Amino acid sequence: MKIARPIASLIESFQKLPGVGPKSAQRLTYYLLHIPQIQLDEFADNLSNLKKDTKLCSVCKNVAETDPCPICSDPARDHSVILVVEQPLDILAFEKTGNFRGVYHVLHGAISPLENIGPDELFIDDLLKRVIFDTGSKRAHDPVSLVKEIIIATNPTMEGNATAMFIDKQLKIADGEIKHGSAVKITRLGMGIPTGADLEYADETTLTQALEGRREL
Amino acid sequence: MKIARPIASLIESFQKLPGVGPKSAQRLTYYLLHIPQIQLDEFADNLSNLKKDTKLCSVCKNVAETDPCPICSDPARDHSVILVVEQPLDILAFEKTGNFRGVYHVLHGAISPLENIGPDELFIDDLLKRVIFDTGSKRAHDPVSLVKEIIIATNPTMEGNATAMFIDKQLKIADGEIKHGSAVKITRLGMGIPTGADLEYADETTLTQALEGRREL
Repeated sequence: MKIARPIASLIESFQKLPGVGPKSAQRLTYYLLHIPQIQLDEFADNLSNLKKDTKLCSVCKNVAETDPCPICSDPARDHSVILVVEQPLDILAFEKTGNFRGVYHVLHGAISPLENIGPDELFIDDLLKRVIFDTGSKRAHDPVSLVKEIIIATNPTMEGNATAMFIDKQLKIADGEIKHGSAVKITRLGMGIPTGADLEYADETTLTQALEGRREL
Repeated sequence: MKIARPIASLIESFQKLPGVGPKSAQRLTYYLLHIPQIQLDEFADNLSNLKKDTKLCSVCKNVAETDPCPICSDPARDHSVILVVEQPLDILAFEKTGNFRGVYHVLHGAISPLENIGPDELFIDDLLKRVIFDTGSKRAHDPVSLVKEIIIATNPTMEGNATAMFIDKQLKIADGEIKHGSAVKITRLGMGIPTGADLEYADETTLTQALEGRREL
């Protein structure tokens, strides 16, 4: 039996999504046969408008409805601390903690030679420019507002670590060019045991890093 | 931070799908930000056309592009054997075996008092009519082509079993009304150990059913 074309097409669309296999794609498609047309149209509109109604913030490269994005244009945030993440989704995670009042920079990926992603495919240059010129030129007479710290929060994977090291190196080279104030502090997220984890199941690298990152009580 | 509205809307749409939690919905949405608009539009079209371009086959209630569906209108299939399933997706599974040459009947659910699904919400009446009148009236002079066997292939769950028992009872009541030929044979799918399973992990009900359904070698 040939499966009906409209069904096959939608199954195919679902299958292109990451983590959705043929069985899940089938299940989702047949599930949608039972929901009202109006909800299908709404879903379809949301899909097709996703990129039309959003843009990249020219400052931090986050995806937003406005440019600059709400965070970059918020005077209550500390613009001297930039947290560098791989993906816009990572920003959500930090915002949920409610404990970061600085601003962000989204790289949109990590350096991965295997996937042909080099530094030029990422927004690394924009980060360097931001640190060296952007804040400086806008607020040349207000040195306090210059970038003071870059927190590199790429993923603790091989790609994320390579990206962190690359950015660190570039920033330190560029540091010589920064006219105002002292050197920018470059930090990396603390590594160790996550809350609620079971020590028994922690891998050696994590435990080693937890030991190295131990703090006095 | 408020998440951009187009992103939030799509996350919400994904979250309505079965088995898609908030995290997966976020991940899928942010993934789609990276794919070309043309692919998004294609996905959207597939969604919105899913139901527009398909209909229920008036004979078997399967979802198809034509009415009757390709299976019901295929003269090479054995129209005297009807396999009754809960969902259109189940037909796919049987068709993949390539070992069933009869026709189907889709109930579009199972009797579930907890979810307020009674026999009237399913295509059970249509099945009865099909057995009693449909084939009979169309091929009154060709008694060989009458329905000979109904294989009930609802899921081996409480709901599926209740549905099977209900259909069995209704068919046996209706059996008196069948004018031509002998009584319709009503069967249920064989129960037991699935291929490749590990006996050690089989539950008691399955093992009991496997014992009851044992066959001579």
